[in-house]
Amino acid sequence: MNIVVEEQVKIVFSSAGNPKTWTPFLKDKGIIVAHVVPGTKYAVKCETAGVDAVVAEGFEAGGHNGREETTTLCLIPQVAAAISLPVIAAGGIASGKAVLGAMVLGADGVQIGSRFAVSRESSAHESFKRAVVEAKEGDTRLMLKKLAPVRLLANGFSKKVYEAEELGADVTALTQLLGKGRAKNGMFEGDLEEGELEIGQTSSMINRVQPVAEIIQDIWEDYQNAKKRVEDFI
Amino acid sequence: MNIVVEEQVKIVFSSAGNPKTWTPFLKDKGIIVAHVVPGTKYAVKCETAGVDAVVAEGFEAGGHNGREETTTLCLIPQVAAAISLPVIAAGGIASGKAVLGAMVLGADGVQIGSRFAVSRESSAHESFKRAVVEAKEGDTRLMLKKLAPVRLLANGFSKKVYEAEELGADVTALTQLLGKGRAKNGMFEGDLEEGELEIGQTSSMINRVQPVAEIIQDIWEDYQNAKKRVEDFI
Repeated sequence: MNIVVEEQVKIVFSSAGNPKTWTPFLKDKGIIVAHVVPGTKYAVKCETAGVDAVVAEGFEAGGHNGREETTTLCLIPQVAAAISLPVIAAGGIASGKAVLGAMVLGADGVQIGSRFAVSRESSAHESFKRAVVEAKEGDTRLMLKKLAPVRLLANGFSKKVYEAEELGADVTALTQLLGKGRAKNGMFEGDLEEGELEIGQTSSMINRVQPVAEIIQDIWEDYQNAKKRVEDFI
Repeated sequence: MNIVVEEQVKIVFSSAGNPKTWTPFLKDKGIIVAHVVPGTKYAVKCETAGVDAVVAEGFEAGGHNGREETTTLCLIPQVAAAISLPVIAAGGIASGKAVLGAMVLGADGVQIGSRFAVSRESSAHESFKRAVVEAKEGDTRLMLKKLAPVRLLANGFSKKVYEAEELGADVTALTQLLGKGRAKNGMFEGDLEEGELEIGQTSSMINRVQPVAEIIQDIWEDYQNAKKRVEDFI
């Protein structure tokens, strides 16, 4: 956190912890804080803690995820109704249609993970990007719920976790199976068999690796087209 | 099915089976057929089978549900892109905002379950309706995945299932635990402790029992307001 301050980082997105831990420290240094939550009660805690904006992340999101499994469609309207802070929708958003849908539900903005994770500029391993591009509907699953729920792309490692969980593996067994460094090993070093491949359900809708500028252009055009179509709805 | 024909039912919504089984028989009698699916590949099968419209139902829906756990936000655009039939979105829809959101994603219409299940006119037991009205975010969970996945409201029965599943209970054990008639027992006879209470994630957004006419009025107004707000988006 001292490095964040020294390097004059302007905005910090925090998650996976109590927003009270770091928000006052960061706010005191003039840094804007957005905190990621998977449920309305946590969004209310963010507001109390002085957070500037809340990222409300649904079940379909990749990587670490809430225990209540509330989807983006159900989560956004509830969070938006409960707090007065800006709400950034996350999970299941990879197109302009989804951006507009999230805004209709009450979001002020969106956070897009998976689609940028496989952009040309992304530091993820090229083999991981290719695996995401090839992913089909149903190829991700929320796993390791007894540790910290995480949405993973199907591979050799996730198959082992699935089988262990089906047999009722406990925290100790799952911790041992997970080991250390699998996320780095999978997503950054390209071990598609034994690595942990964190990605969202939108992976089945992402069909190529594109430069970031092109992704943003695509999303913007799709958003504008979706907005135009709304005019024709009854 | 003969009774359906004799009674001159105009539209049949089928699910939980191959659409080829009954669609030709019903179509031959001039009956419109809509089939419920939880994934795009099943929607394509419906089109081949001669179904008239597809209900695409996401993970957040109550009751029986798909194994791939695709949420409504991710499912609708994929189904809409894959088939030329009308697409009816289901799962997570209880407000006009959600109706508009689903249409933005590509749906031609919506199917609303939970909100009507607790309408004044619904044949569900009054105790069940009250339990749904009182439900909070995170109070439903997709369970019994080794049998047929079903989203249930938390109660005594669901707690037993949860504990058994955590320990890796197999199909035989879960079948025995489930027994017979629990859905009727819970939803229609009002056994809130031992019954199976099937309801969607929208239960946390449903705050009272209302007549159907009022529900439709509410949804319509919320839809129109949401549509007006879109005009102000950039």
